[in-house]
Amino acid sequence: MPRYRLDVEYEGTPYAGWQRQAGQHSVQAAIEQAILAFSGEQTTIRGAGRTDAGVHALGQVAHVDLERDWPANKVMGALNAHLELAGEAVAVTAVARAADDFDARFSATARHYVYRIINRRAPLALEKHRAWLVKRRLDAGAMHEAAQALVGKHDFTTFRSVQCQAKSPVKTLDRLDVRRDGDLIEIRASARSFLHNQVRSMVGTIKKAGEGSWTVDDVRAALEAADRAACGPVAPADGLYLARVDYGAGGESPNTG
Amino acid sequence: MPRYRLDVEYEGTPYAGWQRQAGQHSVQAAIEQAILAFSGEQTTIRGAGRTDAGVHALGQVAHVDLERDWPANKVMGALNAHLELAGEAVAVTAVARAADDFDARFSATARHYVYRIINRRAPLALEKHRAWLVKRRLDAGAMHEAAQALVGKHDFTTFRSVQCQAKSPVKTLDRLDVRRDGDLIEIRASARSFLHNQVRSMVGTIKKAGEGSWTVDDVRAALEAADRAACGPVAPADGLYLARVDYGAGGESPNTG
Repeated sequence: MPRYRLDVEYEGTPYAGWQRQAGQHSVQAAIEQAILAFSGEQTTIRGAGRTDAGVHALGQVAHVDLERDWPANKVMGALNAHLELAGEAVAVTAVARAADDFDARFSATARHYVYRIINRRAPLALEKHRAWLVKRRLDAGAMHEAAQALVGKHDFTTFRSVQCQAKSPVKTLDRLDVRRDGDLIEIRASARSFLHNQVRSMVGTIKKAGEGSWTVDDVRAALEAADRAACGPVAPADGLYLARVDYGAGGESPNTG
Repeated sequence: MPRYRLDVEYEGTPYAGWQRQAGQHSVQAAIEQAILAFSGEQTTIRGAGRTDAGVHALGQVAHVDLERDWPANKVMGALNAHLELAGEAVAVTAVARAADDFDARFSATARHYVYRIINRRAPLALEKHRAWLVKRRLDAGAMHEAAQALVGKHDFTTFRSVQCQAKSPVKTLDRLDVRRDGDLIEIRASARSFLHNQVRSMVGTIKKAGEGSWTVDDVRAALEAADRAACGPVAPADGLYLARVDYGAGGESPNTG
């Protein structure tokens, strides 16, 4: 059966998250429904990142096996037509034939997330549900400095949801950059993989450093405690975007038509 | 009576436009309603730009006279509280006391609009209602070149809605820049003032140059025809943002708290 790689963008607000769950509206189910509508096939797709309720994606990646050998262009057009018809906030931005052993989740070599904070007094209008509004003035430089204490290979138990199913809490965080541009503070996080709620937990913690209520040493101590109770408040889903997923060699160059 | 300058951001999709209209939901009415709710005063506010239905604003400016001499901070907090309570997609990003002769519309020395095109095959998910989706590949360089034929002082009758109420069709366009960044094409237009539908009419016309169906000379001929029928198709409201309004001396430095 031919395997396809799907690159997917979505506005996470109306969804209970990526993963299919009984009685809830998920991104995965929306795409599986569109596949069923166009090919008549009941499939199970697998995504690179199981984003939570309200989390957005600019570049989620999924794979699916189909019975028939459709041209990638045709798959993309048909899925988007059915997603639009169903009023979903999901778009398939690229489709490519993939190797039989390509696995969107397990073949990923890096995941890149962006977290957006709007730092101003006024409520959000254009950015409602698309950023975290923080009214208290944040020092992005202090946040960046604190973030560097988290980069590297560590036991991230402090920054891990109690529901996290990963076998080990040890992960290597390759990048946690904080940059201000006017009212917008953008945080970029990269790693091979993340624990459940790790990015939002780290953002909520380095925000404490941005407020001046925690020092870099406090953030380092929170990490070293390896204790969920040491974590700052978890940042809301609204500001989080799965931006990109990287894969090693394997020739999955998506066809964006 | 003390006069206040209000800087306003809104997501235009749910509104019939800036201007109050009987039986329709407008941004102006939403703000006037918030003023009434907090001060008990029935006011009429004036905006710098009467944006159409579906057009967004990052930096609309309005002025209003209030009976009482409220601190600017208090006006901003109260208006936003009432706008949020009413579920409006409008935020007041700054409030300042203004000179008695400050007029948001007539004192403006420059208006800056941004128009966003997403140039890709896939439908919009995150940018739905916030950009114009153009599936055919556009040459942003050709669009920029064509745009330069419109810069300067001209009779813009071609690019003017038949409903335009301006006395003269002669305007000076200071800037019309086109720049591509990935799938995003951003068009920046600046002038002291614009005719009704002028930006969207110009965008629709230079898009023809981006497709290769019109040359720079065709765009110049459309301008010189001074005939509405010579205009390209008017670009949709979704991609248009009133980005900023400038004022001369007068000390209206807004208080963003």
